Amino acid sequence: MTSPIDPFAEAEALLAAAQPMTDSFWRNAIGRVQQTAGQMGLDGLLVLDSLNVTYLTGFHHIPNERPLGLWVPGNGAPVLLVAHLEKENAEATWITDVRTYPEFPGEEDPLLWMLRETGARRVGIDTLEARKLAPLSDAVAHLVLTDIVERQRFTKSPAELALTRAAAACADIVLETVRADGPDLLSRGGTEQDVLALGFAAANAAMKRQLGARFGASKCAVLGTAHSGARAALPHGKTVARAPLPGETLIVGIGAAVGGYYAESAATFTLGGMTADQRLCLEAALRCRDAAVGALRPGALCHEIDRAAAASLKGDGFGSAIRHRIGHGMGGHNHEAPWLAPGDTTPVAANMVLSNEPGIYRAGVDGYRLISTMIPQADGVEIPSQFLDRHGIDGLVLPM
Amino acid sequence: MTSPIDPFAEAEALLAAAQPMTDSFWRNAIGRVQQTAGQMGLDGLLVLDSLNVTYLTGFHHIPNERPLGLWVPGNGAPVLLVAHLEKENAEATWITDVRTYPEFPGEEDPLLWMLRETGARRVGIDTLEARKLAPLSDAVAHLVLTDIVERQRFTKSPAELALTRAAAACADIVLETVRADGPDLLSRGGTEQDVLALGFAAANAAMKRQLGARFGASKCAVLGTAHSGARAALPHGKTVARAPLPGETLIVGIGAAVGGYYAESAATFTLGGMTADQRLCLEAALRCRDAAVGALRPGALCHEIDRAAAASLKGDGFGSAIRHRIGHGMGGHNHEAPWLAPGDTTPVAANMVLSNEPGIYRAGVDGYRLISTMIPQADGVEIPSQFLDRHGIDGLVLPM
Repeated sequence: MTSPIDPFAEAEALLAAAQPMTDSFWRNAIGRVQQTAGQMGLDGLLVLDSLNVTYLTGFHHIPNERPLGLWVPGNGAPVLLVAHLEKENAEATWITDVRTYPEFPGEEDPLLWMLRETGARRVGIDTLEARKLAPLSDAVAHLVLTDIVERQRFTKSPAELALTRAAAACADIVLETVRADGPDLLSRGGTEQDVLALGFAAANAAMKRQLGARFGASKCAVLGTAHSGARAALPHGKTVARAPLPGETLIVGIGAAVGGYYAESAATFTLGGMTADQRLCLEAALRCRDAAVGALRPGALCHEIDRAAAASLKGDGFGSAIRHRIGHGMGGHNHEAPWLAPGDTTPVAANMVLSNEPGIYRAGVDGYRLISTMIPQADGVEIPSQFLDRHGIDGLVLPM
Repeated sequence: MTSPIDPFAEAEALLAAAQPMTDSFWRNAIGRVQQTAGQMGLDGLLVLDSLNVTYLTGFHHIPNERPLGLWVPGNGAPVLLVAHLEKENAEATWITDVRTYPEFPGEEDPLLWMLRETGARRVGIDTLEARKLAPLSDAVAHLVLTDIVERQRFTKSPAELALTRAAAACADIVLETVRADGPDLLSRGGTEQDVLALGFAAANAAMKRQLGARFGASKCAVLGTAHSGARAALPHGKTVARAPLPGETLIVGIGAAVGGYYAESAATFTLGGMTADQRLCLEAALRCRDAAVGALRPGALCHEIDRAAAASLKGDGFGSAIRHRIGHGMGGHNHEAPWLAPGDTTPVAANMVLSNEPGIYRAGVDGYRLISTMIPQADGVEIPSQFLDRHGIDGLVLPM
């Protein structure tokens, strides 16, 4: 290569360019909800899922036990419905109509109060604890549970995709750091926890440098796991204080959120070299990844992507090493619908954000998982997770 | 005082003595659920709330989208019901009957699969998304939503109380650290975030030193907020990169979990001295705290404790500065029922764990909150949060 790219500088540039979502997005998103609710014959939608509220308003708030609601009427301005002690936090948003209930649990059930505040007869609700269904149904003429917001979240706008790319870059920083500094750390007896902490520190520092105060009101975070040796065969293994050894594999799986949007990147490193057997496994994992990418096109059904990926692993003789689906949607949540898995017949659409996670788990022996974030388009699949393609299989060796 | 106690040494000793819950507790807890379920005419209880599963089994697992279930039959051994990729994690518990479903969402709804696995006709369920109520009700003769596990969690065993005391000590370490090292840090321009990080570091280090690997399978954590100046008047204010100034108040509110059990401690510090006005507010907050302690006795109703606390603040002229209830239950969750709040008529029982959180919030001016963890007993109230009584009002001054 004549002009090698510095992956850290590239990632930081993406973070530096990232911009938080704005009220023009939220107003538009609410408009689309209103249109759908109208088509369903509803007077409006009472949004109770806090991620749905964030998606529609930018109000990033974990409500704990005190219910948070957003009333989206069929026409007109939305209303934030919060506990009295959250008044100022709600009023700091662009929503001008904020109403409060005194306390939880309160003399009146806050959800019944919300319904009363809407004054509506035909109400959609996005999520609800089952024991509330009867009392709430009794309080209105018609109550319907609907996932219209969740479905609207499936496909992302250009602004959301820009944050997704920044998040993928952030996850990549962890992998690049492990590749650059992991060998030294591991040679000195570093543990899974040490390796992960090193990567997290680099990603957090980059976020702190580049995102600044402009992202203060939205979620920015990095999370994930590192596990090695026979424990790499546990798909959901914990990161522990164990020093990985030469000859083993080390799975580093990372999720990151920038401005409230998640992406994932993961690599499996081989320590101190790469055996022919390890290479076979990684080649099969990459072929599986490519099979999923090949199947991912608008109109294909989500479970078909999983089937294509599984067929690839089975064709390579790793059928018994499959422990999970090929992927899942991402956005406000690190795991969300649609699912690239058996049972999900959602048609793939352009601008969805989906993970691609080929995994090979050999009980008692070792494990391999790769993760790339994918964005299907009409003319192909964009892969904002750049680590795997940047380094190839040979780049996954960590000398020790 | 002739023999001053080192609060840090005392807290570390409590942590060092802490012991994780054991299967004798879990077996007993399951036995009590079986007894209640039998009295309700149920064939058993399908437990879907992950905290309830932890309480009954010690299996500490955040299931994300893949449902986790525990089937507690009326008689006989419990069954863990998990996604296939969690098999080894579930089998690492003392539960010998572990069954798995292939994947989420899957060809068959995992919840319907769970019901089928139970083979039961009359089933209790602890928590459920409302849209699942109809399909699950159709699958059995009788389905009832019940909070019997949640209610059983209200009163704690001696082993649970020991962990609660260790958690309160851990939260106290944060406050002691802020008191000891805060003045220097703040004098050098330290921010709310810096002060909180200092306290967290001390508490995390103490936990790491004293809890060791024996707590690897259960939740140990410290969390909380620090906010100052006019923003101290926001009950749920964020901790930001702002340097508190002399003359202001700084609220430090901390929750800590040891072995999966939460407690809370909070103090309000006055910076660079204490004005007569600040002293009046803190005296009123302490009187409010004492009013709640005075009202807290077995048989009193939870909302009566809140009423007594509010009456104290109102009597001191701070009625308009009340922004929230006096307290909440704690245990596996940092906030859980019962609630010392309007609308909760649960009778207080010995060995409950409840917070006592007098708060005075003067919009645009300042704020004051104290938190003590309380354990009501037949002969009085134990207060494992020791910071406030150890130092008194004058100990809340941070010189600057």
